[in-house]
Amino acid sequence: MKVGIIGLGLIGGSFALSLKKKEGYKIYGSDKYHYDLAISLGLIDEKLTDANLSQMDIVLIATPVDTIGKIGNDILDKISADTLVMDAGSIKHKIAREISKHPRRKNFLLSHPIAGTEYSGPEAAFSNLFAHKINIFCDVDDTDPDLLKSGYKIMKLLQMKTIEMDSYEHDRHIAYVSHLSHISSFMLGKTVMDLEKDEKNIFDMAGSGFASTVRLAKSSPDTWTPIFMENKENILQSLNEYIQNLDYLRKNLEEDNSEAIYKQLKKINHIKTIIDKLEKS
Amino acid sequence: MKVGIIGLGLIGGSFALSLKKKEGYKIYGSDKYHYDLAISLGLIDEKLTDANLSQMDIVLIATPVDTIGKIGNDILDKISADTLVMDAGSIKHKIAREISKHPRRKNFLLSHPIAGTEYSGPEAAFSNLFAHKINIFCDVDDTDPDLLKSGYKIMKLLQMKTIEMDSYEHDRHIAYVSHLSHISSFMLGKTVMDLEKDEKNIFDMAGSGFASTVRLAKSSPDTWTPIFMENKENILQSLNEYIQNLDYLRKNLEEDNSEAIYKQLKKINHIKTIIDKLEKS
Repeated sequence: MKVGIIGLGLIGGSFALSLKKKEGYKIYGSDKYHYDLAISLGLIDEKLTDANLSQMDIVLIATPVDTIGKIGNDILDKISADTLVMDAGSIKHKIAREISKHPRRKNFLLSHPIAGTEYSGPEAAFSNLFAHKINIFCDVDDTDPDLLKSGYKIMKLLQMKTIEMDSYEHDRHIAYVSHLSHISSFMLGKTVMDLEKDEKNIFDMAGSGFASTVRLAKSSPDTWTPIFMENKENILQSLNEYIQNLDYLRKNLEEDNSEAIYKQLKKINHIKTIIDKLEKS
Repeated sequence: MKVGIIGLGLIGGSFALSLKKKEGYKIYGSDKYHYDLAISLGLIDEKLTDANLSQMDIVLIATPVDTIGKIGNDILDKISADTLVMDAGSIKHKIAREISKHPRRKNFLLSHPIAGTEYSGPEAAFSNLFAHKINIFCDVDDTDPDLLKSGYKIMKLLQMKTIEMDSYEHDRHIAYVSHLSHISSFMLGKTVMDLEKDEKNIFDMAGSGFASTVRLAKSSPDTWTPIFMENKENILQSLNEYIQNLDYLRKNLEEDNSEAIYKQLKKINHIKTIIDKLEKS
């Protein structure tokens, strides 16, 4: 099985490493910025080129979300009739629209493996990033059924559990459970760093709670700026609600309404059951 | 060495477990709500009572922050002249003021071991909670120098690194590096749970990033409501700045100013070096 990967960062690189150790898989890769590093780290077997692209069984596009539509259309032009093209972007609906007119739209499978860390680049890649995580396929009716089966097969090989979803719904929901977390974390980092300019050494006082909440503020701006821009409407919706909730807490605090705050926190505590399930899965 | 502990939850219980295994320490404890559970879990050796309080070498008050001042004054009335009384509260200045008039103020050492998890109660206690974490002593000039030495000794025994700080500064800074993290996490949890009421199963899409950012939303309302109320002014200050930062990002998003967003995220990324140091320490 020949697998081509475009973009050899955390996601593409980990995809490469996961498959490289499987029998019968040969990994071809390309990366505009990090190709030499990816090769020297042993992530891939050979260079993916315009010449060998048509020999691939599967092509994964793992580049920033604002480039996937264009690259997708370009790749669809060059592949063979039975090549499966997948992406790994954190937004789906705009990509769906961007590739919708391509005569080979049925070769494309919109996918979002929900896996990542706060690190980026080829050096952040590791072979079991995807194991036991959730993968989402979107708008599966627009993909050829046999190629969809191949998509399921490869995700199963990565030990991912796949669910199906409409691309529009995907983007609306992922804004809440992923994109908003990144914004809240980035802005928490900014707020504390702004203070630290004037007040040295406040980080000496930070504990594991701060470290965990601010972890995502280490994420790559190259990955996340495009995600924020491309999923703008949904993120604005979730951000508005988040700011409203913070405003309401601020109001309760100003009014010394400890009872209202207590009741809110108590209710939010129900998230325990939800996260514990997440962490076990 | 006889150690009395008032409040046998995560902090008091872990303090008990850490010292119990050291040679020559006998642990007495009391807890308004969880005493039987604490005893059955083997956290302490004996019950701390009004009758044996005066025999203690050290008394730790590990109750919610709004009760520490009152309990502190009460304990200072009953101890012997050379007993060290410490607390473990996440706010310090108000407690300092509440005990300031007591004739035995010099027996009290304001302390804040920066250690915790999102869990609470006697069952959450474990013996190395404090190891390799930071402890803060406040307003040390108001404590008898020999008792201060005993305070250092016990914190060293717990393998904590102690720094000294003014109680007012402590509260101002801890609002940013601890209390604000809890608020941002609680409200993130609320925002996502509010949506989930109408949209089932969105948590299926949540990954490790969400789990980490929302972890503190599992924290106890009994611990955290009083902290928010007692450190209200400083928290409001940090919360205002946080909301301003979120507002500014929202404005940039609305105006499609990806360049401004990219520059901000890039700058915030500097927090990497800070957190990596935190996590190594």
